[in-house]
This record gives sequence, C-alpha cells and structure tokens, in this order.
Amino acid sequence: MKKMPRALLAEFIGTGILLCAVIGSGIMAERLSGGNVGVALLANTLATVFILYVLIEVLGPISGAHFNPVVTVVLAARQAESAYDRFTLPALFIVAQLAGAIAGAALANAMFDLPLIQASTKLRGGWGQWLAEAVAAAGLIFVILRAPAGKAAALVACYIGAAYWFTSSTSFANPAAVFGRMWSDTFAGVAPASALGFIAAQVAGGAAGTALSSCFDTSSASISAPSEDQT
Amino acid sequence: MKKMPRALLAEFIGTGILLCAVIGSGIMAERLSGGNVGVALLANTLATVFILYVLIEVLGPISGAHFNPVVTVVLAARQAESAYDRFTLPALFIVAQLAGAIAGAALANAMFDLPLIQASTKLRGGWGQWLAEAVAAAGLIFVILRAPAGKAAALVACYIGAAYWFTSSTSFANPAAVFGRMWSDTFAGVAPASALGFIAAQVAGGAAGTALSSCFDTSSASISAPSEDQT
Amino acid sequence: MKKMPRALLAEFIGTGILLCAVIGSGIMAERLSGGNVGVALLANTLATVFILYVLIEVLGPISGAHFNPVVTVVLAARQAESAYDRFTLPALFIVAQLAGAIAGAALANAMFDLPLIQASTKLRGGWGQWLAEAVAAAGLIFVILRAPAGKAAALVACYIGAAYWFTSSTSFANPAAVFGRMWSDTFAGVAPASALGFIAAQVAGGAAGTALSSCFDTSSASISAPSEDQT
Amino acid sequence: MKKMPRALLAEFIGTGILLCAVIGSGIMAERLSGGNVGVALLANTLATVFILYVLIEVLGPISGAHFNPVVTVVLAARQAESAYDRFTLPALFIVAQLAGAIAGAALANAMFDLPLIQASTKLRGGWGQWLAEAVAAAGLIFVILRAPAGKAAALVACYIGAAYWFTSSTSFANPAAVFGRMWSDTFAGVAPASALGFIAAQVAGGAAGTALSSCFDTSSASISAPSEDQT
Repeated sequence: MKKMPRALLAEFIGTGILLCAVIGSGIMAERLSGGNVGVALLANTLATVFILYVLIEVLGPISGAHFNPVVTVVLAARQAESAYDRFTLPALFIVAQLAGAIAGAALANAMFDLPLIQASTKLRGGWGQWLAEAVAAAGLIFVILRAPAGKAAALVACYIGAAYWFTSSTSFANPAAVFGRMWSDTFAGVAPASALGFIAAQVAGGAAGTALSSCFDTSSASISAPSEDQT
Repeated sequence: MKKMPRALLAEFIGTGILLCAVIGSGIMAERLSGGNVGVALLANTLATVFILYVLIEVLGPISGAHFNPVVTVVLAARQAESAYDRFTLPALFIVAQLAGAIAGAALANAMFDLPLIQASTKLRGGWGQWLAEAVAAAGLIFVILRAPAGKAAALVACYIGAAYWFTSSTSFANPAAVFGRMWSDTFAGVAPASALGFIAAQVAGGAAGTALSSCFDTSSASISAPSEDQT
Repeated sequence: MKKMPRALLAEFIGTGILLCAVIGSGIMAERLSGGNVGVALLANTLATVFILYVLIEVLGPISGAHFNPVVTVVLAARQAESAYDRFTLPALFIVAQLAGAIAGAALANAMFDLPLIQASTKLRGGWGQWLAEAVAAAGLIFVILRAPAGKAAALVACYIGAAYWFTSSTSFANPAAVFGRMWSDTFAGVAPASALGFIAAQVAGGAAGTALSSCFDTSSASISAPSEDQT
Repeated sequence: MKKMPRALLAEFIGTGILLCAVIGSGIMAERLSGGNVGVALLANTLATVFILYVLIEVLGPISGAHFNPVVTVVLAARQAESAYDRFTLPALFIVAQLAGAIAGAALANAMFDLPLIQASTKLRGGWGQWLAEAVAAAGLIFVILRAPAGKAAALVACYIGAAYWFTSSTSFANPAAVFGRMWSDTFAGVAPASALGFIAAQVAGGAAGTALSSCFDTSSASISAPSEDQT
C-alpha cells in the first residue's frame, strides 16, 4: 500500500497523456489533412501507437500502465490475495484514470486554443460499431494476458495501431478513452449519448477476451500468477 | 498430441484475426481515403504489419503461428518423425486456417455493416501478378526459414509490409488469405475465379523459397532441426 | 576531461544532423506533397523519428546524445561532483549544440539549392503553442529521466514522433532546434522573433518534467545518481 | 574461402531483392498515389526501410549484408590480413552486387508487366544532389562503422528511411543502387547519364564518413572492445 499514491499518480498522468495525444493529434490531423480523412487517421494512428509504447514502457514499472478500467478489472480479478487488491485498489485506479482522461482532453483543447471542456457532438454507434468495440476490447485483453515477458508495450501499441483501422469504430477499447473523448468536440470525440453503448460493448469484449485467453492456459499456468501484470 | 486442440484453436483465431485485419482495414481505408488508393494501401499495409507482428508474438508459442498452408506444408516437410506430424497434423492445421479465414472475413464484413459473406468480384491475375505471388511466397518462406532466433515475428511482419508495395499483386503470399479474401467484395477482396492462379503461384514460390534457403544450409544445419519453427 | 573533445564533436555532429534532417525533410515534404500539409508533416515526422533513433544509438556512447540544451542542463544539475561538470562542461555542450544546429540548417539549405543561411519568416507563438512547447519539453525530460535501461533511443524517438502531432506547435522541445530552424525559411522554420517565447516555454517545461519525474523517485534513487546519463 | 560461394550468392540475392523492392514499390506507389508524389515517396520509403531491415537480419550472418560497393570497399580496407581479403574478395562482392542489382530491376519490371530492361530517362544531378549523395553515403558509412553490436540492421534501415527525405536526391547512397535503378524507366529510376556524378559523390562521401568515424576511435578502444556505456 505504500506505493499506492505513486501508482495512482502514474495512472492519472498516463491516461491523461494518452487522451491528450489521441485528441490532440486528431485535431492537428484534421486541420492539416485537407479533408482527406485517411491521411488524418494515419497521423492519429501513428501518434497513438508511439505514445502508447512510450507510456507503457515508462510508467509500467510504477503502476502496471493500465490506463483502462477494463484492464484494471480483468487484472484485479486474477489476483485473489485480499479484498483491498480486488476491490478498493481497482476502484481507486479507475477514479485516477477517469480524472486523467478529462484532464488530458482539457490539455489538448487548451493547446489548440479551444474551450477547455466542450461536449462532443459526434454520434457513434450501431450494431457494427458495437461489435467492433467488443472485438477491439477482446483483442486488447487477449494480447495483454498473453504477451511474452517484456513485450507488452510494443504489442499493445501495435495492436491498437492495427485496430484503429480494422474495426469500424476506430477501436476505443477503453471506457476511460470514451470518457475523455466526450469532452472535445473534435476529430476523436464521441458524443456523451453514444458513450453507454461503447462502454457496454467494451465490457462484454473484455470478458470474452479473458475467456478466450483462458482456453490457452495450461493447468499450471492458471494457478500461478502471471509474472508481471504489465500494461 | 495433447496440445493439438489448442494449436488448432490458435491457428483458427490467428488466421481469423489476420484476415479480419486485412479486410477490415481495407474497407476502412477505402472509405476514408477519398479515392487516393496510395493512402488507402498505406493504411492497409500498416494495419497488416502491426497485426502480423502481434499475432506471431502472441500465438507463436502455442501453434508456431503459421496462419498459412504453404508455411505449414514447408515446415512439416522438414520434420521426419512420424506420419502424423507430416500428414495428419498439417491437414488439420490447414482446415483450421481456412475456417479461420472465412470467419475473419465474415467478422470484418459484420463490423462494417456488410452482408456476412459476399463473393468478391475483383479479378486479379495475369503473368505479372502470378510472378509477383511466386516471388512474394518465395521470400516469405526464405525469411521464415532463415530468421535469426526470436526475430521471426518482426521479420515476417516487415517483409509483408515491403511486399505489399514491391509486388504487383500486393503480396497475398498465402492460400488461406486468398480463400478469406474471396468472401468480401471490398478493397482487399479477390474474385473466386482468380483464386486458383494465385494459389498455384504461391505453391511454386514456396518450393522455390525452400530450395533457395537450402543453398545456405551448412551440412550440420541441414541435419539438425531448426530450434523453433516459429511463424 | 580527456574525452571531452570527442563528446563536443559528437554533440556538434548529432545536433547538426538532427537539424539537417528536420529541416531537409520539411523542404522535401513540402515540395512533394501537393499542398496537403498532413502528408508533409507525416513525412517530416517519420524522418525525424528515424534519425533521432539512429543518432541516439550511435552517438549516445560518446556524449550521451543530448543534442538539446534543456537536456544538458537537467542532467548536469543531477551530477554534484564538481563545478566543472555542473557549469563548464554544460556550457561547452550548449555551444557545440548551437553551432551544430546552424551548420545543420546550412547543410539542408545547401542540399536543396537554397541560400546557406536565410532567416525564417514563419511566426509561431500564442498561448496555445507556448503551452504546447512546455508540455512537449516536460514530456521529453520525463521520458529521458525515466526510460528503462537501454530503451532511451527508441522511447525518445517515439515520444517526439507522437508530440509532432499532439502538440499544436509540432513539438520543437529543444532550444537548439529553435535556433537551427531560424536559419531556413522553409516548412520547419521559425522566425527569430518567435524564438524567445518558444525557448522560455521549453525551459519552464523542462523544470516541470524534472519535478514530475522526482515524484516517482524512491528515496534511495533520489540520493544515488542515475546509473547512466542517458540520452 | 570455403564459404565464399554462399557469401557471393547472398550479396547477389540481397542486392537483387533490395533493388526489386526499391524499384517495384516506386512503380506501385506512383500508380496508386494519384499524382501526390509525397504519398508515393512515403510508400517507397516504408517498403525500403522494411526490406532493408529484413535483408540485413537474414543475410547478415552469411555475407555481412553489404549490398553496396562503398560498404564493401570501406570494410575491406579495415581488414589487413591478406591481399585476397583486401582485393579479390571485394571485387567479387562488387560483381555479385551489380549482377544482383540489374536482376532485381528486371524482376521488378517483369512483375509490373514492363520490358525486362529499359534505360531510365530520369536525369538527376546538380551540386545540391551531388552534395546530398555525399552526405547520404557519409552518414551510411558512419552508422555502419559505429552501430552498437546487434543493432546494425535496424539502424541502417532507419537511417536510409530518414535520408530518403532529408537529402534532395532521396539518398541512393550506393553505386549498386545507381546501377540497378538505371534499368527501369519508372519512379525510382536514374538516367545512365546521371550515374557517374552520383557514384563519384558516393565514393567521396564514403571516404568522409570513414574519416569522421575514425575521429571517435579511441586508441584503447581499437584494441579493447568498448565497455558499452550505451545510452
């Protein structure tokens, strides 16, 4: 418990910079790409991949670099040591992530001379995109649970880079990302009215990814804890 | 044989997500790139490179991460231990790969609100593209057989990323990819009528790549098995 | 002190090639991208990420590969061994960096058949961009101070690649970069009149990044010197 | 000498596939990018970076993966063991590289349904581009001579990726590349009349890069291995 304040600070900062990068690069990309949304999403993708890799490598040793409530809940559920580890700490992590997400959105808005907080008006949803969010979150959890030691940062970053393009929703895959993106009415934004559908799909996807990963656990592996709950 | 169901599941999932990524990113790229096919293929390439790296790293320890009948046949031919390893297991792998490929195509179609299964109408072929598929498959097999230990995932992903651009066919290099792409009438699709020519070229290329690699085998290396038949 | 001339030469060459790459790729990108600034900045970003990674890996063993007065001052402040290390050597490093920066700008101009030295007329500034420069420099220092051993080159390169897009100023994050960019009236240039605001913001950001990083120092780590003055 | 035929075959194949990738991706990029040369050069860059990394990793253990007469001559000059190593073997390497280069160009032309061999009509030159080729080759040799152990493949690939954009000549940096590109009248081609100026500049650059690198050789380091105070 001694290390907890630092872990929470790491989750706050990491989720904040992640959302700042996602939203900020979306604003820059839309402004510069002359209406070619493909070029804009390429830039948005590269910025996200690069910053994810950096944040997971740098903050992973401090908090595990979750930056994502679904990741926090899945990893907490695998640790059976105390009620504190299973309930209190995850709740605190999620609060830190959500606070970081909105702070990161505000920082991006400020850098681009926009109002600090503005509700997005970009509606997203429908069965295709909800399926996409479930697939995106399932894949993310699967990659995190099965990444070879020391490779989680590169694998998570690359996975998200691919999923930006192969899912119809551009792969939010993260309720904190949904929450942060609600507060910038720009390229990467999502209207608050669309949030619930996305988050529900992500939770379902997280459960599916956990179940799928468990198909590959050997009996010994399912007993011993993963060596590091990176990312 | 105890591990076989898990290996087959890994081949099914890996080939499925690979095809889902190739087809899904193609749909997204075509929709967003405003008619600039170069931008669309850049996005398609990046998504493919990223997901290939992830899938090979994550599923390699379970099944070898072939996701490709030519790879399966070439690697099986180098193992002389039993008829089971040389014939039965490869056949099962290929069935899992083909089933995964069509499931991945259907998943991509579903995420983008298209009919689950639609035959592609995109004709591909001619001597230039057939030569290209043979070159693409030869290079892929050569890279897999000669990759230094631990680097197969990065090398295969980068090789395919280059071959998307330097071959005139965008480097399918994989009969399971041909099969999956037949079922989406979108950017990455291929008409069933064009499948046979592509697959024949890939098989020829696979044989050529195997032969070329054997030129570099030392006498000792050609006797001992490769340490890991990754990818 | 015996190694000093080589370290200064490394800082001169490294900063020179860095600025040559930033400015040269900006010129090439602007000329080729047909007015699509998004495409131009993508190319400028990739060239910068690639060369940063190369320069830090290759010259890091010689000088620490700072190429940036803010980095030099922050790292010197953490070393308490002598006045020479804290004041004289950093001053010499900064002179080498600034000389390298203008030489690199001249080299880029020469390769593209432009006058060797031309003052940029591109005004940059305002509260949004000043905030952006502070954020960019804070993040850079944070990444350098907290990079796991052996990963600084990749992390710094990726961080700058992301920050090119998520900051409104395209993340100069380096007073030597500001100085070098003043002497090319091209895509990556900055008018001399805008330099002071950028540099002040970078200094403030560097201090903020140092303070933020210290929140994560363990008590033992804050006493002992960092094992290597990375990057 | 026993290994020599394999080394020559590796140089032939490696230079061939390198040129095939450079030229083939140039053709594909020009065809798909709708006149946006920036998009085309981005694709050409990515394909080149990817294939260079793959070829150096895969063929490096066999021949050293030079693929470039300037590299061969510089490395041979540092080995004083026999006249065979200093003169005969380099000459054979260069023959293999030039043969590979023209074969690779022909293969690219064939895949894109062009005449196997066609002289390029693209004139390149002038003081800016000659300076650029000298800078490009100097940097390449510097990177090769100073790359930390095990990182040459990634560093060379990234260096060339940057130099494609920051030099005005798109960084051929390789007489075998000049020779191969002469035989395809497409995006990456160079007219035979322009070859001599490029090659002379590359040779001068190679000498400059060698000299610059020697400034960082310690007398002790040339005897003992550097400890690795790596970044």
